[in-house]
Amino acid sequence: MNYLEKLRNAAAKHKSIACLGLDPVIEDIPIEGKNPSEKILEFYETILDRIVKSGEYPGAAKPNYAFYAQYGLDAINTLKKIIAMYKQAGILVILDVKRGDIGTTARAYASEAYDFFDADAVTLAPYMGYDSISPFIDNYPERGAYILTKTSNPSSGDIQDIIYNGAPLFEYMAAKIIDWHFDGIGSVAGATYPEQLDSISEIFIKSGKDVALLIPGVGAQGGSMEAVMKTLKKFKDIKIHRINSSSAINYAWKKKPDMHYADAAVEALKKLNDEIGL
Amino acid sequence: MNYLEKLRNAAAKHKSIACLGLDPVIEDIPIEGKNPSEKILEFYETILDRIVKSGEYPGAAKPNYAFYAQYGLDAINTLKKIIAMYKQAGILVILDVKRGDIGTTARAYASEAYDFFDADAVTLAPYMGYDSISPFIDNYPERGAYILTKTSNPSSGDIQDIIYNGAPLFEYMAAKIIDWHFDGIGSVAGATYPEQLDSISEIFIKSGKDVALLIPGVGAQGGSMEAVMKTLKKFKDIKIHRINSSSAINYAWKKKPDMHYADAAVEALKKLNDEIGL
Repeated sequence: MNYLEKLRNAAAKHKSIACLGLDPVIEDIPIEGKNPSEKILEFYETILDRIVKSGEYPGAAKPNYAFYAQYGLDAINTLKKIIAMYKQAGILVILDVKRGDIGTTARAYASEAYDFFDADAVTLAPYMGYDSISPFIDNYPERGAYILTKTSNPSSGDIQDIIYNGAPLFEYMAAKIIDWHFDGIGSVAGATYPEQLDSISEIFIKSGKDVALLIPGVGAQGGSMEAVMKTLKKFKDIKIHRINSSSAINYAWKKKPDMHYADAAVEALKKLNDEIGL
Repeated sequence: MNYLEKLRNAAAKHKSIACLGLDPVIEDIPIEGKNPSEKILEFYETILDRIVKSGEYPGAAKPNYAFYAQYGLDAINTLKKIIAMYKQAGILVILDVKRGDIGTTARAYASEAYDFFDADAVTLAPYMGYDSISPFIDNYPERGAYILTKTSNPSSGDIQDIIYNGAPLFEYMAAKIIDWHFDGIGSVAGATYPEQLDSISEIFIKSGKDVALLIPGVGAQGGSMEAVMKTLKKFKDIKIHRINSSSAINYAWKKKPDMHYADAAVEALKKLNDEIGL
């Protein structure tokens, strides 16, 4: 089954195109008396347990590698365990690594993501060109690869907004994604730039080819869900896209002092699923 | 001591601006009967031993993270040991990770590189803009950060060569490096594109600010040392720059069947140092 079918099936089964970011911030995990790796594992294990019990699922989960790697090797091992655990529960896992390297190095990164971590998909940085993308396709026909296109951060315009041939670089990047098109290719476009998300989407729609959008930036970063949904409804099949939320779900307990953190997380996930209204 | 001073001192002490890539390819490591991590550790430990005994040093060492990560957690731990070992021998270590992420994520990656691995410098991908660079400067005044500018691979032109305001993107990137300038900032520019390396160098020289070049692509990739040296001699101080060679040194034994792999590596390093002729 290719990655697009996995996205469609997961969205249909769980009635969700929300993506749950799994980004551990130790100071915000309300578990006492353990080391970082143990805290992280218990935190995401408990949230998964409430997801399964409540039946309120996300359409995917997206751990960001950096949040684990900063706590050392134990935490990288914990990341591997968390990926296995979420996949076991029928949740697609996108490993957010933003890799970008070439040749044997890129093949090594692909092996790390797909063989060692066994993620369903990865995120990739495009600055080095197609050489840095192709090793994630070759030999991995069932996996996905999301290419950074217009990112949600304030300085994303430094490079992505420069004008080439009368259009901004992020639109050129979207056209490159169509040139490079393969089953399972995706694009990262932030909700914090709704007009840019919309123009990228138009390029994909006009091409007639399926490109899976991964949209960060709603919630804590301030992107408007209304604008995102308006754009996504232009696609003939919304089920291949994902809208990510991390800290607003992970740390929802901070605004709900009377609730258990896992109940608060599932409540926030339900709110996001309801807002999306698949 | 800031990173530029470290580069100058190391070049002066070891009479070398060569950078020794430490990129393990298990199939090319002639050590029998051990697991990948043990082979890698013994291989680079033995080469370091011959370097120290011969007095033929590189001006820096550059392990690429991917080559270790593909072999799992043990190998990442081996990478940490190798970094410590080379630093212990007085060799600067550039961790080639090409990270590019933002905010807390970028801070996590900076912590991974500088606190966990204790590397002297890293490589960074610029697609996400200044937000993805600044966390590697803040709080780390003694470390270096090399920003991808014109990479050595065949498809580097996909993004890096697009024309903006009458000049290619890699020149705009070089100008951005000057805009963002901080002590320890560097630029990756490949020897496989000598004219582009030269135009990038002109931008740095004209700015009057020090930018440390990291130049891959000589040796196996086919870049001309003569062209690189012609460009580097335009700088008032060549000692802050580094010319990288990986497989031509690591696996020199393959063309010298009668030599021990570590002797062949040191011989190839000496040849590179002699060619550079500092």
